[in-house]
Amino acid sequence: MGYCAEIIAVGTELLLGSIVNTDAQDVSRVLSEYGIDVFFHTVVGDNPVRLRQAADIAKSRADIIITTGGLGPTYDDLTKQTLAEAFGKKLVPSEKVAQQIRDYFALRGYKMTENNLRQALLPEGCTIFENGVGTAPGCAFVSDGKHVIMLPGPPRECRAMLHGCVAPYLKKLSEFEIHSHNIHVFGLGESAVEEKLRGLMETLRNPTLAPYAKDGEVTLRLTAKAASKEEAEKLMAPILDQVCQTLGDIVYSIDTGSLENTVAGLLIKRGMSIATAESCTGGLLSKRLTDIPGASKFFAGGAIAYSIRSKTELLGVAPGLIREKGAVSRDVALAMADGARIRLGADIGVGITGIAGPGSDGSALEPGTVFVAVSTGNASFCRESKTFHDRDRARIIGASHALDMVRRYLTGLKV
Amino acid sequence: MGYCAEIIAVGTELLLGSIVNTDAQDVSRVLSEYGIDVFFHTVVGDNPVRLRQAADIAKSRADIIITTGGLGPTYDDLTKQTLAEAFGKKLVPSEKVAQQIRDYFALRGYKMTENNLRQALLPEGCTIFENGVGTAPGCAFVSDGKHVIMLPGPPRECRAMLHGCVAPYLKKLSEFEIHSHNIHVFGLGESAVEEKLRGLMETLRNPTLAPYAKDGEVTLRLTAKAASKEEAEKLMAPILDQVCQTLGDIVYSIDTGSLENTVAGLLIKRGMSIATAESCTGGLLSKRLTDIPGASKFFAGGAIAYSIRSKTELLGVAPGLIREKGAVSRDVALAMADGARIRLGADIGVGITGIAGPGSDGSALEPGTVFVAVSTGNASFCRESKTFHDRDRARIIGASHALDMVRRYLTGLKV
Repeated sequence: MGYCAEIIAVGTELLLGSIVNTDAQDVSRVLSEYGIDVFFHTVVGDNPVRLRQAADIAKSRADIIITTGGLGPTYDDLTKQTLAEAFGKKLVPSEKVAQQIRDYFALRGYKMTENNLRQALLPEGCTIFENGVGTAPGCAFVSDGKHVIMLPGPPRECRAMLHGCVAPYLKKLSEFEIHSHNIHVFGLGESAVEEKLRGLMETLRNPTLAPYAKDGEVTLRLTAKAASKEEAEKLMAPILDQVCQTLGDIVYSIDTGSLENTVAGLLIKRGMSIATAESCTGGLLSKRLTDIPGASKFFAGGAIAYSIRSKTELLGVAPGLIREKGAVSRDVALAMADGARIRLGADIGVGITGIAGPGSDGSALEPGTVFVAVSTGNASFCRESKTFHDRDRARIIGASHALDMVRRYLTGLKV
Repeated sequence: MGYCAEIIAVGTELLLGSIVNTDAQDVSRVLSEYGIDVFFHTVVGDNPVRLRQAADIAKSRADIIITTGGLGPTYDDLTKQTLAEAFGKKLVPSEKVAQQIRDYFALRGYKMTENNLRQALLPEGCTIFENGVGTAPGCAFVSDGKHVIMLPGPPRECRAMLHGCVAPYLKKLSEFEIHSHNIHVFGLGESAVEEKLRGLMETLRNPTLAPYAKDGEVTLRLTAKAASKEEAEKLMAPILDQVCQTLGDIVYSIDTGSLENTVAGLLIKRGMSIATAESCTGGLLSKRLTDIPGASKFFAGGAIAYSIRSKTELLGVAPGLIREKGAVSRDVALAMADGARIRLGADIGVGITGIAGPGSDGSALEPGTVFVAVSTGNASFCRESKTFHDRDRARIIGASHALDMVRRYLTGLKV
């Protein structure tokens, strides 16, 4: 039998809906990689009575309890105290942690207030998890056969500690491992993908296959539970093949994680560069390409050509063409792609023009209509994307079409 | 005494960390607007035994139980059945809902499978909430003095039903309301903001004041509970004044919500336009400005000047200046700002150049160093931003500095 875990996120701002519980997601992912079942997430406010109640319930039904939040220096940070009480532990000061907190402030030239030292009080006999990003340390202790792990709430701090400290801690506990592959698909909706694979999905037990849709893409997650990575891979290999064969070239990557990463990899491998010309996406495509560290290796630059003047001035699009065809048109998208490629001396140019909405541009085109063009010097391609009722989605999907077209061009597929 | 609520989100994909629980956030926000306290969120998988356990715990401690998810047509959608059992209700078929489901498929020309009609089984005597976006209806019933509300899991469907059906349902229950103001701050860290306001925060009971930090900004949420909006505003007004006086001009807006919204409002009011020149932020600033519907009213366009060629070609930065001062320098940032303003005929130009990291550019500058310049024709300003160890954060904060500088310029503050 494996362990089962419960995650308790502490913070009134979660209950007010001011923030979303990304910590629980991050912790769940790590637990699932170690084959530890998560049966419940609980969220509770900065209230000692209800936090104690949540801790007692978790103690009664989970082997591993992971808390996030409530480790900070202020008076409403009560997690360590409450969990220690629930498990009959005392808090004791750690001089080492106190010194680290003093150093943290000294190094940054900040003045440290005394309340920061509350963070150096920790449950007796615990394993201390250093916080490489903030000041509040995390910790883990074992009591009554249960593992209690406490992590800071700010997502960056929680994530860093999860991967740096908690993962190795869990590795020692777990008897089997879960491994998975993500199969990334662009160009077909979730229900259509599901229909193609339904027969397979329903018969699978280990590995399992499940689809998730986001921003116009579908990710199929293939997950196997086994004693080792090798064994898990052996279970997954034939299914991975079958899925890729069924879906064909709409699978744009296995595990790489995003269209922009896939395109960046292809460009770098071929020593090619890309330039962008964006109207309605307003920099989103460039932002996605430059999210990647080292983007200067393949990204030549771009123009955000929102106004007519910027289309003519930055990209050399002929004013007559805009007048004749309209700023949102196939021809202008192509001219923008050419302009970006030529002006910036890139191998590939991308042009995007459309009506993100919600308002119309006064033309006959529906808001949500986006023209996406790719120019390579030897060939040009243009797609029309229609995404209605949502400005953000129209922009994201427009940029994704551009990336998908470049991917298809670079891998010799029909664009 | 007001009502207290618990939200139960049902879905194994939440426990695996495949998706984040945005439904709980959406539901919480609506509940908080009606003055209904939320004491717990629970997440449980598609497992009838554990879902029943969660329902029983919620029944013992909440007056209103809202579930999200598990209303779909497949065999693992168990919410209605399990909650009905927990409250001693039977499921009965609704012919009206069955017909709506048939119509939904007919209208779209899809083939309906029989399992879809499982969605027409509903707890006896319930109020049916129609699903305007998908097929699974929601519902609400009262039993043992508790209100049970069941909503679909897909966020778009959940949100539509929340605002269309649940909000009016809750309005009838609630005796007081919660209102709040968000005070947005840029230019000082969370702990420094908190230190300035600690005395005030500790004495407040109604309204309350709480700080949240994100992406280099701090938001102070002031929240009052009262019988009416007027009464809540009366409670908040003096505190709002006091906070704004204490913090001064680092408060960039009340409620407007983002630096880009604030800047957009100022530009539109003054009939002015802005143009951008971005190196390390790679389009992020332009993307943030064009996230705003109607951005064409104030946004002239921009250049993503990642390479040296793009800085000279698109912005007219002198190659000699780049050679002499370095691509990442105060002077080049200023020249980029000038170039964007002049080429695009805008009133204000912004130039950003820096090393987002994690890698160095080979110069003596540390990764995370970003120069942000604003040019207005009459005056130029430059700030140096240092954000270490995080590429995304360096980029976000660099773009935020640009927006803050423009805000300060437009409101006559020292930039």
